[in-house]
Parts: sequence; C-alpha cells; structure tokens
Amino acid sequence: MGTQQDISIDVPIIIVAHRGPVTFSLSPEGSRVVERGSGGLVTGLTGLVTKIRNAMWLCSPITEEDELVASEHPSGTFEVEVPGGAVQIRFIPTPAEAHQSFYALIANPLLWFTQHGLWDLSNAPSITASDRLSFENGYVEVNKVFAEATAQEVMNKGGRALVMVHDYHFYLVGSFLRRRCPDAFLLHFVHIPWPQPDLWRVLPSWMREPLIEGLLANDIVAFHTERYARNFLLTCEELLGEEVDYDAYTVKVGKRTVAVRWYPISVDVKAFEALASSEEVNFQAERLENIRREFLVVRVDRTDLSKNILRGFEAFDKMLDDHEDLAGRVTFLALLQPSRQDVDQYVEYMEKIRRLVADINLKHGNTDWQPIDLRFEDNFAQSVAAYKVFDVLLVNPLFDGMNLVAKEATLVNARDGVIVLSEHAGVHDEIGRFTITVHPCDIQQQADALFNALMMSAEERRRRRIECLKVIKENDIDNWFSSQLEEVSRLWKSLAAPH
Amino acid sequence: MGTQQDISIDVPIIIVAHRGPVTFSLSPEGSRVVERGSGGLVTGLTGLVTKIRNAMWLCSPITEEDELVASEHPSGTFEVEVPGGAVQIRFIPTPAEAHQSFYALIANPLLWFTQHGLWDLSNAPSITASDRLSFENGYVEVNKVFAEATAQEVMNKGGRALVMVHDYHFYLVGSFLRRRCPDAFLLHFVHIPWPQPDLWRVLPSWMREPLIEGLLANDIVAFHTERYARNFLLTCEELLGEEVDYDAYTVKVGKRTVAVRWYPISVDVKAFEALASSEEVNFQAERLENIRREFLVVRVDRTDLSKNILRGFEAFDKMLDDHEDLAGRVTFLALLQPSRQDVDQYVEYMEKIRRLVADINLKHGNTDWQPIDLRFEDNFAQSVAAYKVFDVLLVNPLFDGMNLVAKEATLVNARDGVIVLSEHAGVHDEIGRFTITVHPCDIQQQADALFNALMMSAEERRRRRIECLKVIKENDIDNWFSSQLEEVSRLWKSLAAPH
Repeated sequence: MGTQQDISIDVPIIIVAHRGPVTFSLSPEGSRVVERGSGGLVTGLTGLVTKIRNAMWLCSPITEEDELVASEHPSGTFEVEVPGGAVQIRFIPTPAEAHQSFYALIANPLLWFTQHGLWDLSNAPSITASDRLSFENGYVEVNKVFAEATAQEVMNKGGRALVMVHDYHFYLVGSFLRRRCPDAFLLHFVHIPWPQPDLWRVLPSWMREPLIEGLLANDIVAFHTERYARNFLLTCEELLGEEVDYDAYTVKVGKRTVAVRWYPISVDVKAFEALASSEEVNFQAERLENIRREFLVVRVDRTDLSKNILRGFEAFDKMLDDHEDLAGRVTFLALLQPSRQDVDQYVEYMEKIRRLVADINLKHGNTDWQPIDLRFEDNFAQSVAAYKVFDVLLVNPLFDGMNLVAKEATLVNARDGVIVLSEHAGVHDEIGRFTITVHPCDIQQQADALFNALMMSAEERRRRRIECLKVIKENDIDNWFSSQLEEVSRLWKSLAAPH
Repeated sequence: MGTQQDISIDVPIIIVAHRGPVTFSLSPEGSRVVERGSGGLVTGLTGLVTKIRNAMWLCSPITEEDELVASEHPSGTFEVEVPGGAVQIRFIPTPAEAHQSFYALIANPLLWFTQHGLWDLSNAPSITASDRLSFENGYVEVNKVFAEATAQEVMNKGGRALVMVHDYHFYLVGSFLRRRCPDAFLLHFVHIPWPQPDLWRVLPSWMREPLIEGLLANDIVAFHTERYARNFLLTCEELLGEEVDYDAYTVKVGKRTVAVRWYPISVDVKAFEALASSEEVNFQAERLENIRREFLVVRVDRTDLSKNILRGFEAFDKMLDDHEDLAGRVTFLALLQPSRQDVDQYVEYMEKIRRLVADINLKHGNTDWQPIDLRFEDNFAQSVAAYKVFDVLLVNPLFDGMNLVAKEATLVNARDGVIVLSEHAGVHDEIGRFTITVHPCDIQQQADALFNALMMSAEERRRRRIECLKVIKENDIDNWFSSQLEEVSRLWKSLAAPH
C-alpha cells in the first residue's frame, strides 16, 4: 500500500473537476448542510486531497446553496472540513444557459455517447446549427471560464503549479491554460473510455479536432488503461496527423512532447473498510440478509445505457430457464440509481428495465418468491451493504472507463463472492483473471457465467478473492495518485531546460 | 485505362462470391430467362470474367430457377452467354435452413451491422444460444460447403489455381481451403468497410476470432482503401496478438506472411457509357427531365441504414428553410431501392423515410410543387438516367466500403453536376477533392453543401468534373483487376521456394 509520505510534490496542486468534494444544501430546519459529492472519483480524491499540503479544488456549484456559498467567497477559495481533514475549494460559477448547453447537450450525452459507443447511428446524432451553438457558447465557454479561474489561481501561486484537470467536461482547458501559464505543468486525466478513431469519426471534425488538440496542450494525458492510452495515440495520428511514438507513448506537437500514460484508479482502502463496518451499513446489510434465499446475485449501477442492465436480466432469465432447480433459491438484487432523467433515452431505458423485470418476475416467480428485487434508489449505505452480502456480483458494462464497483465490492464482501465481469470494463485489465469473464452482448455466456459462479467451490472462490484483494490493495488510491506525482516530477525535471 | 492484355495470369482463376453474374427466372410464357445479377461487384466482374481465359465463378443459386439449373448440371459447371462473351458458372446449393441462417441471421445483419457501425448497442445485438447455432450450423456450414466445392474445382485443375473469394459471406472459406489446397493461391476481397478493433469487440471472441483467422489463411487480404487495410492490421494485432508490419502491410502467421492490400474498385467505363446512351436510359432520362424545375438534386441508394437517407432529407429541409427563394425551383429526386425487407430495422427505416418525406413536402410544398420526389423502385435504367440529369448528387453514407454510385454518376452526367460526398465513403479517398465533402451526421454542413453545390459556377463545376473523370477513367475496372493479378504473380513467385 502507498504510504502518506509518498504523496507529495514541492509545488501547489490545483485540481479541476466538474463535481466538487462536497455539495451544500439546506436542512428542513433551514441550516446549511455539507454532503459528500457523489461518484468514485470524488470519493477517492477527497481523501487524498486532505493529505496533500497546498492542494485546492476548482469545481462547479451544483446546488442552489453551492451558488450561495460561492457568492459568499468573492475572492474565490474557502476551506471545508471533510472526513480526514480539510479541503480548499473554489466554486466556479458559469452562466446558467452556458452551463446547461455544456453539461446537458455536449458533455452528456454527446461526448459520453461517443466515448462509450452508444449511438444508434442510423438515427442519431443529427448535429444541427443549434448543436454548434451549444458547443461554442456552452462547452467552449464553460471551458474558458474554468481555464480563466485556474490561470488566476496559478498566478496567485507564482505561476509554477501542477494543474490536474479531470475528465471529458474540460478537454479544452489545456489549450487555454497553456498560453496563459507557460510555467505550469498540466496533466489531464480522462476517466471514461477513449475509443478508437472510428468512433471519434461520429463527431464532425470542427468538434473532434479542437477536443483532441485541447488534450495535446497538456504535458501528460492520462487514462485508466493501456488500451485507452494506445487508442489516444491512434486518434492523434489518424485524425490529426500528429507524430506519435507507440513505444514511448508520446505525441510530438511542434517542439513539445506530450506523454500519454495510464494509471488505473482505485479505492481508499482504509476509508472504504471503515465505511463498510459502520453502523448504518451494518444495519442495511442485516435488512438485505432478510431477502436472501440460498443465493444472492447483486448488481449496483447508475441506470446508464453503458451499464448493460437489460442484458444482465436477460441472462438471469436464461439461467432460470436452463436450471429449473434454482427456482425459489436465488434472488437477483438490483440496486439502480436513476441517472440523467433529463435525457430521453435514459427515461426510456428505465422504463424498459421496469418492464423487463416485471416480465421475468411474472414468468418465473410465484406468490412466495420474486426472482428479481429491483430498487431504483440512491442509497449509498445500502449499496455498500450489498457489496458485503453478495454471492455473485454482475458487472457487465458495454464499455466502462474503469468500474470501481468491482473493486469496492471485492474489498468488503464477506462471503468470498464471485464477480462476473465484462471484458470491456477497464478494471478487467487488473482483476479479470480472478473473475468469470463475459462478453457484454452474449446472453448465453452471461447466463452460464452466473450459474458457474453460483456453483463454484468454496476453495476456488476463496483463492480467487484473496489474490484479487492483493491486487486491489497494492494499487490503492494513494498509489494511483503518487504514481502520477512521480511521473510529473520526472517529466518536469526533463522540461527544466526548455522552460 | 488498363488494356485487355494486362488481364491475364497463367493459371486458372476461380471466383467465389455469394451472388453470381446471372440469375435465371421463368417468363410468364414459361420459358427460361437469364438476367444480370445485381450489385456493382457483379456488374464489374461479369465484364471482366468474359475477357479472362480459364476463369469460372462459384456462387449461390438465388431463385428457384437457379436451383433447377443447378440440378441440371450434376457435374457442376456450365457456360452462360452474357453481354461481351461467355462465363463459366457453378451454382453451389446449400441446405435451405443453413443458407437462411448464414444469410439472413449472420452475414446480414450481424456482420453487416458490425462492419458499418450500425448497432444501437444498449439494445442490440443480444447474442443467444440460437445465434450461436446460426453461426455454427449456418455461416460455418455454408462456408464449408463452398470451400469443399472450391477445393474440388482446384483439384480438377491440377491443384494450382488462383482462388479469389469475395466479401463478408465467406470469411471462413480460406481456412478450410488452405488445408485442402496447399498449392492454390488464395486472395480474399472484402468489399465493405473493415472497422477498427473497438467495433469488432461488439462480437464475442468465439465469433470474431475465427472470422479474422479465416481471412489470415489467405495469401492476400484486399480492401478498397488504405484505411481499411490498416484497420485490418490493427485488428489482427489487437484481437489476435499477431505480429504485423505497418510499413510492409503484412501479418506474420506462423511461417506464412499474409499481404494486406487495397485496390479501389471501379467501373467498366466503356460498358457503362454504352449503357448510359442506350435507348431505354435515354427514354428514362427524358421522363426525368419533365420533373426538373430549375435544379435537380438526386440520390440513388438501396434503403440501407448505412446510406444515411434520413439525414439527407433533413439537410434538404434545412436548405429550404435557410433559402426561401429556392421554393418552387429545386426538386430532390430520391430513387431508393427497397432492401432487406425481411429485417425489422429495414422495414422501420423505410417507414421513417416515408413519414419524413411526407412531413417535408407538406411543410414546404404546395399544389404546384413538391420538393421531394420519392420513388421506392428497383429500376436500373431510371437510376442511370438520373445520373445523367442531376445538378447535385448527394452521397452521404454513414460508412460505405466504396460507393460506386459516385463513380458511375460522374462518368455519365451531362450537366457538370456536383457531388456532395460523405468523408466516410471509401470513394472519398479517390475523388473527395473534386466534391464538396460533408460529415454524415452534420445536418447544417450538408444543407450548406447542397446550397453551395447548386450555386457553384459553371467553370468550377466543369473543372472539377474533368479532373474527377480523369481519376475514374485511369483506375477503371480492368486496372482494378490487373493490379491484383500483378500482385498475385509477384507474390506467388516469392512463395515458389517454400512450396
């Protein structure tokens, strides 16, 4: 495991991410409440940031109360207490209309769909003049505002800082920042899949080219897996004609050399173990134990199209068809957090899930037993409880940048549960050999995998989990972060002469 | 232009393709009628094959009468007169159920959708046990039967023959044939796009791997463009771990070296010019001239999802919105040949086209003028007539292996018409610089391109067409074929020692 001493670098660190480590809201009594931000990235980073001297976090206000907090700090930054310490935050307000276009029209779904290969191409996307305006007045504009605020902070700190920009919301920040802050070191981390050029071709060149050029303004472009890093090289070569080195993983842009790297993100092991043994999670775990017959199959996901939720139920249905003796003995607990209900396809997707589950329960169930227990909820404690009690965890995304569920669940599971894992989840590179690998479109293969996972011997399950745990604990979140800092230090030194 | 003398090689040539150069049917009077097979490949090859000594064509019987003809030739081959000479044919009957699975479940749509990036991935494909049976008892089985018949013909000719297998129907023929006929030279030509590994990942490895291995059993694997050839190298490296050489365009498979090449297919220039000045085409052209106002925009396509027909109409609609003065002056003639009406998505697609055209005609049209003239017909003479009379030809596929419409239409157009061409059509590599390039998903860009094409000066249109014609005539169908034979001769010699 990484130790706290590793996580240091002798310059200020500025983290730029759309979601912050906390959001503010009003309690029913009217007092201000601080809540942790959601998402694996935020959980991991928040813990880290408390350990790092001289780090701050620039992010978007999400709630109305966030906006209010932002307005109370005209100079920008303020400090918030979070579990483990304090974090320096600055909320970056952007015009509401620009933010709406940036977030709800370009980042999600346009970039998200493109990078996860989700387009039904004969129907969508149809890119109109209005989409072009959304890009220019929304995505470009919000990126500019964030770059401007970041530049201010870099200058406040004397010009020499490490800027770590996160994800597909901010592909253009690098290009704006590069001009303003020549002495800053820029790292951009992409947390979702980077697909091959064929998939980028879905976007017209006036959009895809500045996005890729924006990333190339950084000193390091980082991904979760080697394959995404290689795909990025392929993209730079094929779509921009850049000179790339497939052995050194670099792109030559004029006189600059951009390093392309991969650091599989992980979990704050101690914090997550502590959470899993908290009173609330234990309470939820007891409740879940009540629904167990002999076996419990679990999935925990946002209702995102990329998560492949329908085919998971189809596979479970097939398994029940193939093995009638499982009737009444196995329950599939699906904890699904409703997601992006402002996007039509996501609303339809939830409805399809509901109908399919109803059909399967009607077909196989009886008054005494419903094979699928479907819960559309956002209850984090319940999710962690489910991680503890599963016999089989189904993680079958179509494409997934990393998928932290598989790591978190392995960490705290109390039954030597088996993971059925899609070959297209980023996490498959690290732990695929301890799981049962499936292809996300192959229903029969998933049905067989669920069955084989349920039937696996206790010794085999135990052996797999122990080895898998070792891998996860070795590359924990501290290690993920310190590996990046080491590479930054190394490259920054080599840049010293030209600067 | 290639000359007839170029088209020769001192060994027998066996062409394997799903569709033959002719199909047979019964006239109303009950006599047997021979008709040309459909599709650009068939048109081009038929003319060629009449010029080559010692060539024969193995294909599937399509009609009932074809089956009857097949049964009348128990020894296999027979000769048929076609325009320009005679062709040796052998129909390969396959069990009806196997052929149905092979054709209607695996080749179309599974491989077609995958290679054109047409999946709506959150919904399809869901690959079941029944699909696996369709693959094994359909696709694999029909490939085996074709390979067996081909092997017989190779042996009849003494074992030394050039076998040229065509397209996505027969990816496995190479592997079966390689074992049976060690002295044959095997070339496989893929006429549809070869996408990058990310798109092949939509198929499970038990299906995608034998398909790629099957191709690697050939001596040459050929495509229409350099990009597809490169994508094939990427696929072999990433999905099979083969050793590839990106400079030499080769794949090392054990002791064998597979050459990966590209030969953009073209048109039989003289035959097509003759056709275009035939009485029937002239008659059709006169009829089409009757619908012209000032300008005629034309598209000619099968109603295939990859052809991007809906967005073409949306762009035309947008152009009429943007330029009200065009009302009553321009007509969009869409000649659409209904395609694959046994596949649900294709039936829906035609219905969507119908509704969209009705909406646009209602919105912009009046009792005197309907902006879109939509014809669902299979009338080849009318299509060639449309090539002659267009002012602007819209060719905006999402992805297209080559697209011969753009070449044929340029060849015979009588008005120095302008082509608006998708950057994702294979033909774009050759003639893109003489057209107005568009992105298939960008409606506004296509609307602007249609307008600019209509407004282009006569001098500019003439200059572009003359240069484009030069390129097309230089690389005509004879040249396409003789380039392959030259490479075969060259490589066969270099293989002489190991054989």
